[in-house]
Amino acid sequence: MKIYRINMETLSYTEEAVPQEWAGLGGRALTSAIVAKEVDPTCHALGKNNKLVFAPGLLTGTTAPNSGRLSVGAKSPLTGGIKESNAGGTASQKLAKLNIKAIIIEGIPQEDKYYSIHVDVNGIKIAEETELLGKGNYEVIGKLVEKHGKNIAVMTIGQAGEYRMTAANISVKDPDGNIRSAGRGGLGAVMGSKKIKYITIDDTGAPGVEIKDLERFRAAAKVFGKGLTSHPVTGQGLPTYGTNILVNILNEAGGLPTKNFRQGNWEKADKISGETIYDTIVARKGKPTHGCHVGCVIRCSQVYNDKDGNYVTAGFEYETVWGFGAGCLIDDIDIIAKADHICDDIGIDSIEAAVTTQVAMEGGIIPFGDGEGMIHLLGEIEKGTYLGRILGNGAEFTGRAMGVTRIPTVKGQSIPAYDPRAVKGVGLTYATTTMGADHTAGYAVATNILKVGGYIDPLKKEGQIELSRNLQIATAAIDSTGLCLFVAFCILDDAEAFQAIIDMINAQYGISLTADDVTELGKFTLRTEREFNKAAGLTKKHDRLPEFFREEVAPHNTTWDFTDEEIDSVHNY
Amino acid sequence: MKIYRINMETLSYTEEAVPQEWAGLGGRALTSAIVAKEVDPTCHALGKNNKLVFAPGLLTGTTAPNSGRLSVGAKSPLTGGIKESNAGGTASQKLAKLNIKAIIIEGIPQEDKYYSIHVDVNGIKIAEETELLGKGNYEVIGKLVEKHGKNIAVMTIGQAGEYRMTAANISVKDPDGNIRSAGRGGLGAVMGSKKIKYITIDDTGAPGVEIKDLERFRAAAKVFGKGLTSHPVTGQGLPTYGTNILVNILNEAGGLPTKNFRQGNWEKADKISGETIYDTIVARKGKPTHGCHVGCVIRCSQVYNDKDGNYVTAGFEYETVWGFGAGCLIDDIDIIAKADHICDDIGIDSIEAAVTTQVAMEGGIIPFGDGEGMIHLLGEIEKGTYLGRILGNGAEFTGRAMGVTRIPTVKGQSIPAYDPRAVKGVGLTYATTTMGADHTAGYAVATNILKVGGYIDPLKKEGQIELSRNLQIATAAIDSTGLCLFVAFCILDDAEAFQAIIDMINAQYGISLTADDVTELGKFTLRTEREFNKAAGLTKKHDRLPEFFREEVAPHNTTWDFTDEEIDSVHNY
Repeated sequence: MKIYRINMETLSYTEEAVPQEWAGLGGRALTSAIVAKEVDPTCHALGKNNKLVFAPGLLTGTTAPNSGRLSVGAKSPLTGGIKESNAGGTASQKLAKLNIKAIIIEGIPQEDKYYSIHVDVNGIKIAEETELLGKGNYEVIGKLVEKHGKNIAVMTIGQAGEYRMTAANISVKDPDGNIRSAGRGGLGAVMGSKKIKYITIDDTGAPGVEIKDLERFRAAAKVFGKGLTSHPVTGQGLPTYGTNILVNILNEAGGLPTKNFRQGNWEKADKISGETIYDTIVARKGKPTHGCHVGCVIRCSQVYNDKDGNYVTAGFEYETVWGFGAGCLIDDIDIIAKADHICDDIGIDSIEAAVTTQVAMEGGIIPFGDGEGMIHLLGEIEKGTYLGRILGNGAEFTGRAMGVTRIPTVKGQSIPAYDPRAVKGVGLTYATTTMGADHTAGYAVATNILKVGGYIDPLKKEGQIELSRNLQIATAAIDSTGLCLFVAFCILDDAEAFQAIIDMINAQYGISLTADDVTELGKFTLRTEREFNKAAGLTKKHDRLPEFFREEVAPHNTTWDFTDEEIDSVHNY
Repeated sequence: MKIYRINMETLSYTEEAVPQEWAGLGGRALTSAIVAKEVDPTCHALGKNNKLVFAPGLLTGTTAPNSGRLSVGAKSPLTGGIKESNAGGTASQKLAKLNIKAIIIEGIPQEDKYYSIHVDVNGIKIAEETELLGKGNYEVIGKLVEKHGKNIAVMTIGQAGEYRMTAANISVKDPDGNIRSAGRGGLGAVMGSKKIKYITIDDTGAPGVEIKDLERFRAAAKVFGKGLTSHPVTGQGLPTYGTNILVNILNEAGGLPTKNFRQGNWEKADKISGETIYDTIVARKGKPTHGCHVGCVIRCSQVYNDKDGNYVTAGFEYETVWGFGAGCLIDDIDIIAKADHICDDIGIDSIEAAVTTQVAMEGGIIPFGDGEGMIHLLGEIEKGTYLGRILGNGAEFTGRAMGVTRIPTVKGQSIPAYDPRAVKGVGLTYATTTMGADHTAGYAVATNILKVGGYIDPLKKEGQIELSRNLQIATAAIDSTGLCLFVAFCILDDAEAFQAIIDMINAQYGISLTADDVTELGKFTLRTEREFNKAAGLTKKHDRLPEFFREEVAPHNTTWDFTDEEIDSVHNY
């Protein structure tokens, strides 16, 4: 295993051995450790002193089911703190098979030119890029597949990243040439600041991942795969309806934030539900189920076609559907799908873009419910107009531009699809995660709403602190393995499947981790991230939800009522 | 003395006795004490939980020379911390003569309507305002003078405040109907958020300020006045050339930030110097010297006319001339004067607007040196276009919109007219003041460049920490008296004049303060402000200059080289 360090100022790279302290790390644990060690927390996130780090997880590149996730790390230009953004697609597995532990990208080119980076068994090539500048991600990927063949992996930025908009993401090509995103925290702007349009990875001739005890590994992988396919969420719900199954569930639970978090349910929710989307996909001969990377057995992604049967989008997630749908009072799935397509193409986080649209509606740029207006706004981002520059920098930025105070963000990052007053556990995660508001950092919705890993009443405070804390620790560990976070649904209920993960890691590396060691890995990662954030100037005061959440939300008429002390105690581990 | 508390939600007010703890406070000490006690530091600065406080100083309303300054306080929407913004004009003296210790404005109207507030001997009147909405400050003041007579005092917001732009200021009518500004920190946006277009103050029949020992007061005031008129800076330099005398001085010292802080001197500096402006004013029959309030003996303001002898602007300050001039590479005084006029009229801080223009040039919106382009940009702010919404939110906001990293701000507020690498004492003030980058919070330029209060080499670190610390303490005290900060030039060199201030306060209130008590008042104010900022989430990490100041600046090729520990030690008092 090796680390590639690319210097964009000198347009050169070095190959480095993996230091002992990082040998046992992967994915998020590794990107966060590298960023925390090497990046000045007070630097400008889009300046020469930030670094952009790509790392596959500990199990990535093996046959472990659902192990192909990629971690991307840097100081976030959106939150001002550390960021790990996690994506599917084919890049991570190819990096792992090339025995690349991490790629660290430093500096900024001296000339005002853009570059591409190519990674293969011979190392790194940096070349000036002109042809694909200003192009959307679909065109970039299409052209690179033409050039390199469909097996090439691509990580790219769209126009939003080129503009260094702080809601810009990094897009990762999936096995079919569609787009998965390292979505949150503006890492596309960091890639844009380093003047990298795209990175291609060719694993032809790669040595592959070494497994110390192949037989033991295969046995554990089998147990793990069986666990995933037999759990009702990962084996039935997600494969059938994708994450959009949550629209009706959250609506019934009163936790579907509607009209910029004004109410917790919406009478039109069924029009944008997973069931409705499923029927539409089937009728239009799309794919109701689809994997974002090779080896995925959950296959929560799907391919959504338009009325004429032409591809519109893939990986059409609940949070996106919620945000452009209930959040904006738009009940037309085709317009929402089009918005998702544009987000993927211009390379902007669809959650941030959706909440930004809600705030733009709040500020009167367009009225609530205006689907065509929403598409127009995304076009402004693509063109980089002044309105686009406002919107492309996210919800908080847009709110400030328009004098709006009802802005649902934490640490500058938009609160996603679960009202924290009606799903209190995830509210604590929004408040306290190192990442800025992020449901995936400690998905208490599982236990609050889906009754996975037990049940804690979502409307009550009791048990939520411990729930959010434990999920944040577990998530940091899972994000370090390269496993899809959705495996958590299974392992929260299935001790054998959880043990199988540890067995796979032990078999691969010839070590003997225990469950406690995995917990420690999670705690280590969180501590590393919190120390970075503290040094960047983030405090307990930044672990707070906006004041308007102290107001009641229908239908349960609950408020965000945790005290500061209760919130802060999430960090006691 | 009394406090008026206005509730904009209920459109009502109460008259309150002055609590004992605030009885000995005035000006900045009082606004900061009130904001710190009553405002939740984590609230949204433009939301219902912020409060806007107006307070005259301890000596305001008396015949003490230069004692007519107004303090305006709130949580700043620009810095996220506490803010006291200080202005001349006639409002403060009228408040004092009406025996109003402070006006505290709370809440936000329930209806989407604008209001005016009228203050006189009968109390407060709140009325809906429609006629003057969307109008600039000159028109507002003109119409109110037509209605109430020229003796009316006015505090008003322009279009920028109505848009709740975070660089918006509060304009205060001066004796001639021209405009002085509580400029920095976006307090105009706070006034706009409370839907107050203007406040008028009529002191007809006011009881006036009680002086316990009139004879002793008069004697001290005479000593103080004599000190001011005999000191070379307050008696000669400022009355003749105004603050613009600094253009040539800073240029020669290599501390005139040129082209967005790229160099410390400019070959065209003389074209915008105080001497050139003086000659122009005299030739065009303007006023080379003019007081911003009754009783000012320094008279550093002036009235600048155009080629046809028509009024363009008054209170045309060095920092404005620097910012739109050397900072933007614009050497045409008439264009700079026009920019100042527009800033006053639309109600935007001219320092923030000028540095924003530099950053806009950095981001390629217009080229450096484009004077007509600069006027066009200010017009965008007036119109509230999307570009205007970007610019009106200041330099840091504009930089983020355009992907610019060379942004000279501290705590989100623009660094003014003295390069911190060449005038190191004021650099420490920029970094550590509670206010965000602000030269007036501890004007080390006095001792570094003007050799007032001794001399400390501006290019060396030695002595600067103590200098900035002591000046910040002294400034907090002066800002609490209602005295113009420029009296500091005199009292730093003239112990008798300093004692005369204490004597005036003692004679007025019948107390026996010592010099130590005055120092304690300054320390109390700074501590109060720092505690608020800490509770708002500001840390030592926010006491840092942007990383580009670590690079050398010509002509002295010095860098910003204080360690974090040295910077933090400014707070040791």
